[in-house]
Amino acid sequence: MTTTILYVCVTCRGNAAVAADASDAERPGARLLAAVEQRLSADGDKGIAVVPANCLSNCPRGCSAAVSASGKWSYVIGDLDPDRHAGDVVDFARLHRAHEQGVPEWRDRPEHVRKHTIARVPPVKPAAPSPSVPSQEQS
Amino acid sequence: MTTTILYVCVTCRGNAAVAADASDAERPGARLLAAVEQRLSADGDKGIAVVPANCLSNCPRGCSAAVSASGKWSYVIGDLDPDRHAGDVVDFARLHRAHEQGVPEWRDRPEHVRKHTIARVPPVKPAAPSPSVPSQEQS
Repeated sequence: MTTTILYVCVTCRGNAAVAADASDAERPGARLLAAVEQRLSADGDKGIAVVPANCLSNCPRGCSAAVSASGKWSYVIGDLDPDRHAGDVVDFARLHRAHEQGVPEWRDRPEHVRKHTIARVPPVKPAAPSPSVPSQEQS
Repeated sequence: MTTTILYVCVTCRGNAAVAADASDAERPGARLLAAVEQRLSADGDKGIAVVPANCLSNCPRGCSAAVSASGKWSYVIGDLDPDRHAGDVVDFARLHRAHEQGVPEWRDRPEHVRKHTIARVPPVKPAAPSPSVPSQEQS
């Protein structure tokens, strides 16, 4: 099984007020990255690589994360609070990893992910020639 | 050079009022697909494949399109009017194709694309080991 990549935007300022002179490490995006890494490390997860990203172009609805894997759909999740949603992001990455095309069942996705999916992109080279992907998301 | 894929969401209802009983072909997303195909065909473009997609999960800000290529960043563009923005989408796909990492210069992008980029996702397998991608988008 290919590695699932969990990108966390480290430049996100989120919706919280952040001082203009705040250091990079204090940015909500950087805090979300730390929270996600801590969560994955605590659970001893394999097969999911956390990768910091510089801007996922979802600034108005940050913090942001994206889940991708070779041959699978990519998902961008927004409105993430570093203090509350690291677990949701990790849970969704696990579901994405377990699904052949990276399209977890709607009902299984964490509520925050269901309500705050910003966009999804089909795989450039699908793993399967005729993916049985739902014809429409329910967002 | 690898093929650039231009996904057009054919299930998008856009912001226009669409009758509940409208046929699939009358959906704004389907009209955007037709407009994009017509534009590309008229210009005799090579290397850009237009692929219909069933939901890019950007329903509140449709119509939607995404531009991807192997080893490059993917971009999702929203708020597309099938009667006005087919050319912008095609122009952006050409710029994306011409850029090694799929990150066209900000100033070169069509105005609608600059103002209505919904999200972007890094490549699963970058074409270059250390892509010199701008650290932050200007959106």
